[in-house]
Amino acid sequence: MKKIKKILIANRGEIAIRVMRTCRELDLESVAIYSEADRTSLHVRYAHEAYCVGKAPSSESYLNIDKIIEVAKQSGADAIHPGYGFLSENADFARRCTEEGIVFIGPSPEVIIQMGDKIQAREAMTAAGIPVVPGTDGEIKSEDEALEVIKSIGLPVMIKASAGGGGKGMRLVKNESEVVSAVRAARSEAKSAFGDDAVYIEKYITSPHHIEFQILADQHGNTVHLFERECSVQRRHQKMIEETPSPLMTPELRDEMGKAAVEAAKAVNYVGAGTIEFLVDNDLNYYFLEMNTRLQVEHPITERVTGIDLVKQQIYAAEGRELEFGQDDLRQRGHAIECRIYAEDPDNNFMPSAGKVYKISTPLGLGVRTDGYVYEGYEIPIYYDPMISKLIVWGKTRDEAIARMRRALYEYKITGVKTSIKMLERVMNNENFIAGNYDTHFIEKNQEQLLSNGMKDNPEDMVIIAAFIDYLDKLGSNAAVTKEFVPAQSRWKKIPYVNHF
Amino acid sequence: MKKIKKILIANRGEIAIRVMRTCRELDLESVAIYSEADRTSLHVRYAHEAYCVGKAPSSESYLNIDKIIEVAKQSGADAIHPGYGFLSENADFARRCTEEGIVFIGPSPEVIIQMGDKIQAREAMTAAGIPVVPGTDGEIKSEDEALEVIKSIGLPVMIKASAGGGGKGMRLVKNESEVVSAVRAARSEAKSAFGDDAVYIEKYITSPHHIEFQILADQHGNTVHLFERECSVQRRHQKMIEETPSPLMTPELRDEMGKAAVEAAKAVNYVGAGTIEFLVDNDLNYYFLEMNTRLQVEHPITERVTGIDLVKQQIYAAEGRELEFGQDDLRQRGHAIECRIYAEDPDNNFMPSAGKVYKISTPLGLGVRTDGYVYEGYEIPIYYDPMISKLIVWGKTRDEAIARMRRALYEYKITGVKTSIKMLERVMNNENFIAGNYDTHFIEKNQEQLLSNGMKDNPEDMVIIAAFIDYLDKLGSNAAVTKEFVPAQSRWKKIPYVNHF
Repeated sequence: MKKIKKILIANRGEIAIRVMRTCRELDLESVAIYSEADRTSLHVRYAHEAYCVGKAPSSESYLNIDKIIEVAKQSGADAIHPGYGFLSENADFARRCTEEGIVFIGPSPEVIIQMGDKIQAREAMTAAGIPVVPGTDGEIKSEDEALEVIKSIGLPVMIKASAGGGGKGMRLVKNESEVVSAVRAARSEAKSAFGDDAVYIEKYITSPHHIEFQILADQHGNTVHLFERECSVQRRHQKMIEETPSPLMTPELRDEMGKAAVEAAKAVNYVGAGTIEFLVDNDLNYYFLEMNTRLQVEHPITERVTGIDLVKQQIYAAEGRELEFGQDDLRQRGHAIECRIYAEDPDNNFMPSAGKVYKISTPLGLGVRTDGYVYEGYEIPIYYDPMISKLIVWGKTRDEAIARMRRALYEYKITGVKTSIKMLERVMNNENFIAGNYDTHFIEKNQEQLLSNGMKDNPEDMVIIAAFIDYLDKLGSNAAVTKEFVPAQSRWKKIPYVNHF
Repeated sequence: MKKIKKILIANRGEIAIRVMRTCRELDLESVAIYSEADRTSLHVRYAHEAYCVGKAPSSESYLNIDKIIEVAKQSGADAIHPGYGFLSENADFARRCTEEGIVFIGPSPEVIIQMGDKIQAREAMTAAGIPVVPGTDGEIKSEDEALEVIKSIGLPVMIKASAGGGGKGMRLVKNESEVVSAVRAARSEAKSAFGDDAVYIEKYITSPHHIEFQILADQHGNTVHLFERECSVQRRHQKMIEETPSPLMTPELRDEMGKAAVEAAKAVNYVGAGTIEFLVDNDLNYYFLEMNTRLQVEHPITERVTGIDLVKQQIYAAEGRELEFGQDDLRQRGHAIECRIYAEDPDNNFMPSAGKVYKISTPLGLGVRTDGYVYEGYEIPIYYDPMISKLIVWGKTRDEAIARMRRALYEYKITGVKTSIKMLERVMNNENFIAGNYDTHFIEKNQEQLLSNGMKDNPEDMVIIAAFIDYLDKLGSNAAVTKEFVPAQSRWKKIPYVNHF
């Protein structure tokens, strides 16, 4: 076992700070890297040391392998944590770390390659006896082959890029007449997005639930799962709200899928924290979707119901420590929900909203966790993911957790940029969500209630705005301090959220 | 069962907001009251409605029973939550509420009177078979009686005011020659502080641990305890740090003291949330100290390890609901610690430090809860308790909780007023605290390490200050925004904490 002493975090934003927090709790030094656009970013100041690695575009900084390795060596970091996104599932990067004698906090390059290629992953899972969505066992060679496959598994089907992700290179086919054009379109999109035009075919599940299992494995063959996360509330194929336990789950199904997830991880000799994503249909059939060989954005809900610090466990696994607990020591206690706060406009097709953050009021108190990175006066750069914060709540029951999330969202006020907060509040008040009756089409199915552009301002907000203006008037001689932040009353009315509740 | 719909919170600061948060989660309306000094206070803006009840001194506002009752009736509040301090243990107030048809969220006036008078409380506990500290069974009538009692129980003893609290009207007697003057001094102090010169005598426990049990009782005779809180880290007889489980506790002792606490509550037909405080000596003998017939400041650590929202339970009990859980359903999971953040100067005899708060950076992330009420630009009034925030952390183990508290304290930056943060960090690094080896004399016994006035500034902080100045320089044209907050470099050096880590 090799004790890690100093970790370079090859990431930015909330996840960089998340990892650094655990470093600090473990008395490890942390090294930040940052792009020129991130000089004023909070992760730079949180770290023990920080190094600029290039220009704003990710390809020149956060994806710049040579430069990042150079900084790691220069700073004396003995390990690198990749966070999520960027280089977290890049096998070349993992291999370079190993070659340079730096511990990569994640699985081996071989596993990253195997699980990163959807066709290879599917083959490995089929061999391990894990159910996969009916479809081709590998890349389809021709449009004729596509037609043949579709005859055997039936419509509808999805054409998917082998190298894909994030909804790119995907085409839904409902009629046989669409097959040829869909295959061509998917190929062409895959080629331009990933430089690889291989595509495959999968049976399309009509009311799919995206349910994933967190797994954790050490270098000594011990693998456990930390139960499921229900991630079906998505916008544009990206998760928006996650919860655990899943409202769809039964104890029997949980047990069965948990065992399958552990088998899946064992089949590829997985080490560290990983996630097995499944599709589950309304009849509770489950199918392996993909494996994410890294920490997930939504890992905090698992931390909350199990009490396990997943970043700590990643570091321990990378050091070669044995897991301190077995499957029987783990329990889900209570209910956790995460809402992702995006700087974007849900009422304008989720358009990202970069710019300067004027005021923030962060939810606090019982059962509330916030993982964010923006601060007052911070200018959100246009270059990166628009997620600015994650709001996680816990309740003894799902109802308590929903009520707490409503309260926490009410307390969350951000001015200067548009955010998804108001829309998330609408979800928490949506009767289908409250009933646990939703699948991955939830937002489109409920868009009238969730995305109504013409929605009236909440009368309560108006009272608050009035109170706040009143308060500013009372400040009187201190007005200079706040002038910068306080537009004329008429402008306030256009700003949906005001500072301090 | 009478459903409560609207609650007036007869308090201010963090506890007012704490109660309002649960109101919001229960979909209840909340009514704030405030003094003229609290116009800009956050609880005023958090509530659905807010009413000014008088001038800054508590006696004219937060203790003004007539005015508060008037506001409750005017606003249509059907219940009053008193928080802690102020009117929370005032039997006249509880009685007035009942007379006016308003639900008082707390026990009956009779119980408040009985447990508020230390001599009556002691008698009730003795009758119920709960061990009490050896001493007089009631008020001592003369100095001769005092001498006689001391002969039977032995020195050292403590002379205490019957109506006392907060260390007032107390005298330690180590030698027989001091008895007469100590009794006179205690009587005179008690007379001026409480208008009542009755005093009694108790055996003085040399290495006392202050350990209290949270109890919860409904109107149907069901009473449970929610385990202990260790509150021995105190300054000037006021708690500073609390944790649960107590490092001193054994499962057997917990079981025995928990049963005693339940018996104590049942002996007075207690309803709602209450706390039985015990003194425990090094041989694990325990003695009833007093009962607090209200919510405690430190209730969040109990909430964290049991998963129970205590304010919700108080409201439920006041409505007449039956407890939804029994003793066997309750468990302590993991370890929770609370640090009270006072606006005061630990290195200058804990002198309160009122004034304007310039910048705040609040700890967030895994396992951290903050309950506060001050915001940037807020002027802390001189009239009230200097506690401005409570920082609560949870860890799977005590070690993890301590490491997390260190990390959270590191993240907590408040400029403009002096705070106890630095001293709390020193406690978290103190070997006796880490070993769980402490009693109520901890701070005086460890004052060299905890209170060193001449302590050098942390070199790390200096680096941060330098980095922050550098950052401000970079802001360049935006300097006007921050000018107000940014003193000359020379002044920064005198400010112990800087914004944003």
